[in-house]
Amino acid sequence: MGVHEECGVFGVYAQAPANVAAITRLGLLALQHRGQESCGIVVNDDGVFVSHKDLGLVSEVFTGARLAGFPASTMAVGHVRYGTMGASTRGNCQPLEINHQKGHMALAHNGNLSNAAALRDALELSGAIFHSSSDTEIIAHIVTRERLSAPSIEEALCRAMRVIEGAYSLVLMSPRKLICARDPHGFRPLCYGLAPDGAVVVASESCALEAVGAKLERDVEPGEIIVFGQGGPASIREHCGSAKRRTCVFEHIYFARPDSVLDGVSVHAARVRAGRILAEEHPADADVVVGVPDSGLDAALGFSHAANIPFGIGLIKNRYVGRTFIAPSGRLEQVRVKLAAIAEVVAGKRVVLVDDSIVRGTTSGRIVGLLREAGACEIHMRISAPPFLHPCFYGTDIDSTDNLIACRFSVPQIAEQIGADSLGYLPVGRLSELVGCDGYCDACFSGNYPTPVPERAGKDRFERRLSEIG
Amino acid sequence: MGVHEECGVFGVYAQAPANVAAITRLGLLALQHRGQESCGIVVNDDGVFVSHKDLGLVSEVFTGARLAGFPASTMAVGHVRYGTMGASTRGNCQPLEINHQKGHMALAHNGNLSNAAALRDALELSGAIFHSSSDTEIIAHIVTRERLSAPSIEEALCRAMRVIEGAYSLVLMSPRKLICARDPHGFRPLCYGLAPDGAVVVASESCALEAVGAKLERDVEPGEIIVFGQGGPASIREHCGSAKRRTCVFEHIYFARPDSVLDGVSVHAARVRAGRILAEEHPADADVVVGVPDSGLDAALGFSHAANIPFGIGLIKNRYVGRTFIAPSGRLEQVRVKLAAIAEVVAGKRVVLVDDSIVRGTTSGRIVGLLREAGACEIHMRISAPPFLHPCFYGTDIDSTDNLIACRFSVPQIAEQIGADSLGYLPVGRLSELVGCDGYCDACFSGNYPTPVPERAGKDRFERRLSEIG
Amino acid sequence: MGVHEECGVFGVYAQAPANVAAITRLGLLALQHRGQESCGIVVNDDGVFVSHKDLGLVSEVFTGARLAGFPASTMAVGHVRYGTMGASTRGNCQPLEINHQKGHMALAHNGNLSNAAALRDALELSGAIFHSSSDTEIIAHIVTRERLSAPSIEEALCRAMRVIEGAYSLVLMSPRKLICARDPHGFRPLCYGLAPDGAVVVASESCALEAVGAKLERDVEPGEIIVFGQGGPASIREHCGSAKRRTCVFEHIYFARPDSVLDGVSVHAARVRAGRILAEEHPADADVVVGVPDSGLDAALGFSHAANIPFGIGLIKNRYVGRTFIAPSGRLEQVRVKLAAIAEVVAGKRVVLVDDSIVRGTTSGRIVGLLREAGACEIHMRISAPPFLHPCFYGTDIDSTDNLIACRFSVPQIAEQIGADSLGYLPVGRLSELVGCDGYCDACFSGNYPTPVPERAGKDRFERRLSEIG
Amino acid sequence: MGVHEECGVFGVYAQAPANVAAITRLGLLALQHRGQESCGIVVNDDGVFVSHKDLGLVSEVFTGARLAGFPASTMAVGHVRYGTMGASTRGNCQPLEINHQKGHMALAHNGNLSNAAALRDALELSGAIFHSSSDTEIIAHIVTRERLSAPSIEEALCRAMRVIEGAYSLVLMSPRKLICARDPHGFRPLCYGLAPDGAVVVASESCALEAVGAKLERDVEPGEIIVFGQGGPASIREHCGSAKRRTCVFEHIYFARPDSVLDGVSVHAARVRAGRILAEEHPADADVVVGVPDSGLDAALGFSHAANIPFGIGLIKNRYVGRTFIAPSGRLEQVRVKLAAIAEVVAGKRVVLVDDSIVRGTTSGRIVGLLREAGACEIHMRISAPPFLHPCFYGTDIDSTDNLIACRFSVPQIAEQIGADSLGYLPVGRLSELVGCDGYCDACFSGNYPTPVPERAGKDRFERRLSEIG
Repeated sequence: MGVHEECGVFGVYAQAPANVAAITRLGLLALQHRGQESCGIVVNDDGVFVSHKDLGLVSEVFTGARLAGFPASTMAVGHVRYGTMGASTRGNCQPLEINHQKGHMALAHNGNLSNAAALRDALELSGAIFHSSSDTEIIAHIVTRERLSAPSIEEALCRAMRVIEGAYSLVLMSPRKLICARDPHGFRPLCYGLAPDGAVVVASESCALEAVGAKLERDVEPGEIIVFGQGGPASIREHCGSAKRRTCVFEHIYFARPDSVLDGVSVHAARVRAGRILAEEHPADADVVVGVPDSGLDAALGFSHAANIPFGIGLIKNRYVGRTFIAPSGRLEQVRVKLAAIAEVVAGKRVVLVDDSIVRGTTSGRIVGLLREAGACEIHMRISAPPFLHPCFYGTDIDSTDNLIACRFSVPQIAEQIGADSLGYLPVGRLSELVGCDGYCDACFSGNYPTPVPERAGKDRFERRLSEIG
Repeated sequence: MGVHEECGVFGVYAQAPANVAAITRLGLLALQHRGQESCGIVVNDDGVFVSHKDLGLVSEVFTGARLAGFPASTMAVGHVRYGTMGASTRGNCQPLEINHQKGHMALAHNGNLSNAAALRDALELSGAIFHSSSDTEIIAHIVTRERLSAPSIEEALCRAMRVIEGAYSLVLMSPRKLICARDPHGFRPLCYGLAPDGAVVVASESCALEAVGAKLERDVEPGEIIVFGQGGPASIREHCGSAKRRTCVFEHIYFARPDSVLDGVSVHAARVRAGRILAEEHPADADVVVGVPDSGLDAALGFSHAANIPFGIGLIKNRYVGRTFIAPSGRLEQVRVKLAAIAEVVAGKRVVLVDDSIVRGTTSGRIVGLLREAGACEIHMRISAPPFLHPCFYGTDIDSTDNLIACRFSVPQIAEQIGADSLGYLPVGRLSELVGCDGYCDACFSGNYPTPVPERAGKDRFERRLSEIG
Repeated sequence: MGVHEECGVFGVYAQAPANVAAITRLGLLALQHRGQESCGIVVNDDGVFVSHKDLGLVSEVFTGARLAGFPASTMAVGHVRYGTMGASTRGNCQPLEINHQKGHMALAHNGNLSNAAALRDALELSGAIFHSSSDTEIIAHIVTRERLSAPSIEEALCRAMRVIEGAYSLVLMSPRKLICARDPHGFRPLCYGLAPDGAVVVASESCALEAVGAKLERDVEPGEIIVFGQGGPASIREHCGSAKRRTCVFEHIYFARPDSVLDGVSVHAARVRAGRILAEEHPADADVVVGVPDSGLDAALGFSHAANIPFGIGLIKNRYVGRTFIAPSGRLEQVRVKLAAIAEVVAGKRVVLVDDSIVRGTTSGRIVGLLREAGACEIHMRISAPPFLHPCFYGTDIDSTDNLIACRFSVPQIAEQIGADSLGYLPVGRLSELVGCDGYCDACFSGNYPTPVPERAGKDRFERRLSEIG
Repeated sequence: MGVHEECGVFGVYAQAPANVAAITRLGLLALQHRGQESCGIVVNDDGVFVSHKDLGLVSEVFTGARLAGFPASTMAVGHVRYGTMGASTRGNCQPLEINHQKGHMALAHNGNLSNAAALRDALELSGAIFHSSSDTEIIAHIVTRERLSAPSIEEALCRAMRVIEGAYSLVLMSPRKLICARDPHGFRPLCYGLAPDGAVVVASESCALEAVGAKLERDVEPGEIIVFGQGGPASIREHCGSAKRRTCVFEHIYFARPDSVLDGVSVHAARVRAGRILAEEHPADADVVVGVPDSGLDAALGFSHAANIPFGIGLIKNRYVGRTFIAPSGRLEQVRVKLAAIAEVVAGKRVVLVDDSIVRGTTSGRIVGLLREAGACEIHMRISAPPFLHPCFYGTDIDSTDNLIACRFSVPQIAEQIGADSLGYLPVGRLSELVGCDGYCDACFSGNYPTPVPERAGKDRFERRLSEIG
């Protein structure tokens, strides 16, 4: 996949001092699929923030020794982040920490503001300075400025939400409170739950609640702010209903973990349904259905059941290949290091191959090649999503449209390029069956954007401008 | 699993100088499941050996920068090793390198000698010194001593094989030759293949041949020595047929990768057959069959097909939990970090849960607990192997019999302990159906050892004795 | 020594693209004595800033591989920093980088603002947010706000200097200019020089100019701003003469490297003069003069010459003991790991022992003990500075006055405590002879502060207040 | 210096269990100047050896965490080693550990056998295998073979000493004893001392005894074996007097730490005497005497006193430049990073510059250049050793004679090449005055070798031969 989620957020508010850093680490481990570049934890030690953030996986950054350095406490926030690699990106690690006499603030954010460029312009022209190019810092500035006159941090956040637009699922920690908020469209998921000991846990996905032994209470509603403090949870609903719900459908198709339940819908079940739809829309005479591990397996099972063709384990993934592994160039292909075909399953067979997306087409072509080499006689590729045709402005990093194979070729042409005997995508019109309602965003497939589209992403624009200034 | 394979071996003999270190790295990545503690590569730079060995995974030890330090060459050997962690074990990293005026030698070994203690005693009493406690060093001594009078290194190895007993699959590199050998029982697998450019590749499993773009030529026969040198391959068959074939059946059940074909048998297919046998022997009224990922999936699929009960993806594994991750103690259990149940699949269902073994019972109990928590109403556990009852002397590290749950409790008692509604093991008598013949070793299940059993494993005996000496 | 300088700064402005990161690394290596906690380099790649900063020594952080990642360019700034260790301090690494539409800015700072707390209060109340607790961020805010209306970055800096008070030696890099500035008192040193190829080099001390092959041009004057840009250097003297010169005398006594020339005075020569003054003020009947390496050697030589007592090498320092080395507790003392006495030199001798300061007295006592153990029969300790009695608000981290031995005991009492037969300090009244003028600050010895003393250091005050806020 | 000592050894035998690993670390820190490539510690945990060895400095390899992994015990041995860098050299780290049924053995060795090649040939032809190219492994083989028939390990060592020739200072640890031995010529130093608690400490130099709080008892005599065991120390003197004493004079000139006393002679005093001799033999009209830090300082002081010319601190060394630092090529010279001249001291002065050796001449030329640049008007170089003309076969790594400047040029020519106004070496004939007797080896200066000279060093010969064998 050349498509990336940008982040996962986590927060815990315990009733009594506990090893909240350890709990947050477990939560972040369960959210690691949402971002593998960097991670961070901030613990609230009675008003003083103790933090560690670094490039790397959660298991690498938060070793036992590192964890032992955090104090027992009642509150913590954590973050995992996807981003482009590079020496300078350590400065972009989250949660972002702000020191201010009105109170410290630690901010973990998932999403992308669609009016980031305009907000940043205005802030800079009124004297604000920026250390990073992240939207999170924009939010921090606006919340802080509102905080000067607002009676509380949650009121400041509520006022800030009148100004910021686009996708954001936030967890904000002040010296005394843990606050979560979700944008009025509800683009990115956010939920909270309760542990047996009464601790509140907030996370991007319910799988992180389960991972720490908590039970899902409910999703944070689009536009809602929930404050966890000494007086029990309080919901601020000023922004609820101010926009139509537009949860990202690609969370169900690809991003989220199959054991998560997002806005009431099981991710695994949605993917199985996608496989069933594919079997109806694009049936195939075949002997076996094979999913590309791991994300194509659920839909493959759905296809198998609906088409009554046996499900087979025809591809296996090498669990020991590190993220940064680079295969030497030449005939030893990258994909061969990560995936292997089981000849026993596919040799002499007509294979339905199910994956969740085709981005540039290169990887799909190589997987088809692996199966042919292992003896498959026909390969019918089925994709559990519609073709990617449009950029996302709400927190998903889709490849440039110049590189998207579906922007340049027809479905039969793509089938030919990747070497498949047939190819079928999930129809855009049936996406609602996956999530069981129509309150979702499918802009990357349909081009129907729920908010005004920014002229250009703020970061690029900003960086281009810099070289024009003395 | 508390059962460990000890090693994987790899070798390459190219027709012209190539990046043999990179090829070996790819091969070792594909063999990483056979040993995750340490790894090593020795490249033969026109008679001078260039090597690197260290504790860690292949992807950690052999970074791009490290790889760049190896010269282009025509020969290399590699090794992955499992072992108990500890500062001193770096000295046990393989391949073992020996400097001698009759020629350098690099030796990669998988297996365990059953007469190691006696051989070591004799060697020491004739003046040999040992740097490690490994059997590999014993083999090196004996080969070297035979080399003094033998006309060639392969003849020295052939003579050494008259003396050493037990399990060994060896790859030996001399300045001019790559030699592989397998013990007369053929306990551990060993095969070789050819790359399109004519390079010979030797590996513990065929999956490593595929990983480097080579095709399986054939297995090395029990007792066979094959010499790859300038005159083409030569087979020495003096020891072939000197003992009954006794390939390790647990390679098919658990150790080997499902895409490997060992001694003509597909590992995946053997596991699917195990699932089918379980469905016949221990049927269950159930709604869904769930395998414990990754090693229980194939047998679960076999059970599902044979019993005509739907296959479900009811457990998922977190791919980002590092080997060395240790969960904090308390209610946040270790297993919850690594596995998660999908409630959608199991809630309100009667579940057949398929795994490949039960060692101490603790992990199985926790997995059953996860499913119960997710709402499963009945759980019927099926194990695709017979119960472990006896130690292995041929290269498998099975837990002490004091800890093996099957040594202490009956099947119904175990079911109760792990919280399952029923429990069924694969009968020892049907193991032959997995591998399609009776030439296998099942000593860990049956206690029928193909060789004289050592009074005590040589290493333990040796270490105990030391503290008795002045 | 328990007294620490806070920072060293460096900048280079070349006439043509060069390996400015390598030049900056060499300069920082020469300034490493001014700060060993963290370091950083920012290179200006045609308006885009490429940076790396981390905890550790220059030689650890800027390896050859790291250096290779920087582009050739015409400008760079660097920084070394002393600070308290801790996970979170990576965020305080300098140079500080600010992104703003009026132009990027990288800021390296040595010193401490005496009105930091008031400035920060005002900034926060007008909506500024802070990521760190450093004064550098305060300066960045003020410069940026002035920049909104100022015609140039240098004019913005000049306006900012009307507001900030205390000690600061700055190097500021904009997309097109390298700018250095020194506070009107000139507390901390700052100078610049020219390399043979015309490159301008700015540094805290002249030793860093020599290290990169440049020659000292002159010191930056107190209050002066110098702009290096395409039109050649330009001096802005608006703040020159606005305050009395007050260079830190402890730079000459301890901080600076002996081969540096600060404000026209050789550091080595100043220390030799200190030794001569000690010989006049506190003569001793002795056989040998021994300096505590490295910082007591120059003064010991001065004492030796003035008193006509042979200079001896009686103590040697272990060059291989890392910064973070911690000796096991018990009789194996820390000092014995770092220093050793040469019995040949001191046995049976009356020794004058010269050091640059006594902070808590513990280390001095141990050194006296080492000499006694080696056979010295009399030990006359001489300190090339007056006693520390007062805190510094201008960038020196002196131990709490509660711990300063001179705040609690008389000179004879201190002598007794450390086990010396006599003890003599440099008189405050003769400090002017070290630097050859009276334009210096000796507040830590005399309590005469050149600026209003802050009620409390801003950082502490800020942190204390935080726990009082909701 | 391009001349390297190969090793330092250390051992401790305590009366009661103690943190012997920590004591050994302190001892090795004090011996670090004898070898910076690798280090190792082996602790004897009641007969079981616990060890750690790695490439790196003692402070890097033996961190607090690493140290905590060693058990309390009564015995340990340690080693520091110099060697050529490279991935494969980890295998050469010492102490060497040998497992054998006659008892474990850990061996730390300083020196070089002059009959290594012949011994290795004989061993290999009788079946011995070698893991490394070190002489230590040869000694281990011979001791082990003798051990088979000898009544004790010390008797085995005594018999082995009948066979091995050349330089060796050994510390050998068996399960129950700590044994030290020195070759009959006494080439390399070795001594032992007692700690206040009765622990025996053995070390290459007395500075390591002081570092752990022990007092020098005496040197191990040439040819002597001392056994520390339960019955108190026992001396075996069979080999004492079998050869003329030939201690390495370069230990006093350069290798040893100035605070060590070797065979009754203070190293510092010997160097001061060398300076005095230089002042007599090669006087100079000069204003100041400057030593090259650190090793030229003692002789500079001796010259200064004898010539009655003031001693000056004219060069300082950067303490923060790591071992592996490589300056970028071009005009920024390597030497400028490590050394700096103090202009105040040398400008306009006639300088006597004292160093301990000239190897290739490059470094000396650069130091002379630094002083000229700083304004020195005359530079008279004095070397506290005779010119290097011959290779060493006893454990010193002197540059190839092809590179030795003194082999190719006359003294006036060398002076011209390095840019000095005059140059004077210590006469070979006066070396006896340094050490106060004639029982020393000066072969590297005189060519008078105390043992038969090996045709070629065994290692080179061995490696060359390998590529000739099939």
